[in-house]
Amino acid sequence: MSKQQEQRGEHTSMKMTMRLGPRSYDIILKRGSLGRLGQLADLMNRRVLVVTDDGVPAQWPDAVLAQCTRGYKLVLPAGEATKCFSQLEKICRTLLENGFTRADAVVAVGGGVVGDLAGFAAAVYMRGIAFINCPTTTLSQVDSSIGGKTAIDLAGAKNAVGAFHQPELVVIDPDTLSTLPPRHFANGLAEAVKAGLLGDEKLFALFEEGDAAGHIEEILTRALAVKKAVVEQDERDTGARACLNFGHTLGHAVESASDMGLLHGECVGLGMLPMITDKTLRRRAAAVLKDLGLPVKVRYDGAAVQGFLAHDKKLGSGDKLTVVRVAEAGSYYLEQLPLEAVQAMVGSGIG
Amino acid sequence: MSKQQEQRGEHTSMKMTMRLGPRSYDIILKRGSLGRLGQLADLMNRRVLVVTDDGVPAQWPDAVLAQCTRGYKLVLPAGEATKCFSQLEKICRTLLENGFTRADAVVAVGGGVVGDLAGFAAAVYMRGIAFINCPTTTLSQVDSSIGGKTAIDLAGAKNAVGAFHQPELVVIDPDTLSTLPPRHFANGLAEAVKAGLLGDEKLFALFEEGDAAGHIEEILTRALAVKKAVVEQDERDTGARACLNFGHTLGHAVESASDMGLLHGECVGLGMLPMITDKTLRRRAAAVLKDLGLPVKVRYDGAAVQGFLAHDKKLGSGDKLTVVRVAEAGSYYLEQLPLEAVQAMVGSGIG
Repeated sequence: MSKQQEQRGEHTSMKMTMRLGPRSYDIILKRGSLGRLGQLADLMNRRVLVVTDDGVPAQWPDAVLAQCTRGYKLVLPAGEATKCFSQLEKICRTLLENGFTRADAVVAVGGGVVGDLAGFAAAVYMRGIAFINCPTTTLSQVDSSIGGKTAIDLAGAKNAVGAFHQPELVVIDPDTLSTLPPRHFANGLAEAVKAGLLGDEKLFALFEEGDAAGHIEEILTRALAVKKAVVEQDERDTGARACLNFGHTLGHAVESASDMGLLHGECVGLGMLPMITDKTLRRRAAAVLKDLGLPVKVRYDGAAVQGFLAHDKKLGSGDKLTVVRVAEAGSYYLEQLPLEAVQAMVGSGIG
Repeated sequence: MSKQQEQRGEHTSMKMTMRLGPRSYDIILKRGSLGRLGQLADLMNRRVLVVTDDGVPAQWPDAVLAQCTRGYKLVLPAGEATKCFSQLEKICRTLLENGFTRADAVVAVGGGVVGDLAGFAAAVYMRGIAFINCPTTTLSQVDSSIGGKTAIDLAGAKNAVGAFHQPELVVIDPDTLSTLPPRHFANGLAEAVKAGLLGDEKLFALFEEGDAAGHIEEILTRALAVKKAVVEQDERDTGARACLNFGHTLGHAVESASDMGLLHGECVGLGMLPMITDKTLRRRAAAVLKDLGLPVKVRYDGAAVQGFLAHDKKLGSGDKLTVVRVAEAGSYYLEQLPLEAVQAMVGSGIG
């Protein structure tokens, strides 16, 4: 590989192993890997259900399907509303009707909605069958595809019902990002900026250089490494994993209040800024978000956001919320703040 | 305690621990224990949802509810049809609407249907909350309440969707059997006879003495000990647990063909007999079942049963079925039989 190619991040590939004892698995990042999935996982000697949605260009699920001996494809409606009981039941019925046993597998090809839902179906069908996750959006590639969290929503509560079910393999093909709309490309990178601020100073510096698209493989790799280290410490989300909530306390409240007008990553980006305690760093982070095309100033219904924060309080202890704060890029600390103090961070807008 | 009391099995109590590392839990068998559940588990400092069905006399769930500070009760329709997606969703909605968090608990008070369904809801709500199982039928007391298998049915396939979710505690109150109809009392004991034949010669001998009701605590204790030892070896049902299928290969097929006219334990009893290779033992086992009031001769549609056996084959390897055979009480061996050989055991009736 020439130095120029290397600088442009071409033809690089990466393999890391999520170390979770008997539930360990590989995460492979490589251009063109969807078209060669059969070299990485067994698609020949078992039934395979490829689950995708109608927002994902058919070329990606079909590239996987073409390699299966006994392959089936299920295309769900795109959008968060698909993460529901009735779609979960639909996947399980499809598996049952096609004679899937515990020896067979589900492959998700799509964003977080497809991965969360198909992963949950794989977690509960016959009390658990193999699951391979092939995320096709920046958001799922840097975040939701690893860590084993699967879920559906219920009555407006995100991820209210789900399971921890580690995949057998995660395959990230950056080529899929070529068909991702620019707004969604930027949306997922907000979680990568989060990873940089939390745990990798160099990743944050990379964003400050600009040209994220040109460094996409290094960005994905570094962001995955931060998340992997946290998940390995806390598979079932009972401690260390709380740091991944950086930007999410305010972000979720803004997301709920915006009635899905804003995307998840956009809200997380907005939610991070007031949690950065150093003014200079906050300004630098805002510049990075802006450069990516992410919102840094949004007007919203402050009272509504405060209301959603009060609801979130249930998940804390007493009247306090645990928030994640960053003073310098690459490290964080947890702080218990009274609900009112967090609500006070919300005026008529963030930024 | 007087010798007489002891002989009648009165006022005895038993505690054993299911040893599964971080998922270990106690199984407590004691008369009156439902009315004192608060001494065994925390019902005061967390929300508790008591799940039961309308076939369970209200006195049992209400005894638990009375001890809860923030207790809620959900009464489902009795019967296997309740083990479905819509009832699962109903339990999850009830938990959500009442603000249950990961720190709260679900308590099942009822038979296998209630335990399997409520246990599954506890497994997936917020990706898993605490579950306490209080089985009130012989079938659930000797079998389904321990081992961590939770599930619902789908499109006629029993337990097609579920999770392994070990309870926090299992509390067995034999007093609840006083309100159990005699046919159901006998039904569950078929699984205890199975446990005796598989792994406890003395338990089988106890049944041969007659008066099962008079020895109920010892029967429950011994049957639980057999199952516990197997589950401890094979929590996720990938090996040793296969022995618990003794009587179930034929039993499930008969159960499916009988269109629920026969109860599960009755079918397991029938299904065990042809799997006992020693003629004398088979006769003794039939006498035990008969003495309990369980069927030993049943006419059914042989072709239908053979059809269901062929369907079951999917769960075996190749064209063979793995069956569990018993030559002498207290031990078993596995045998791979061609489907046709198992089908040949089915004429126009068993017995």
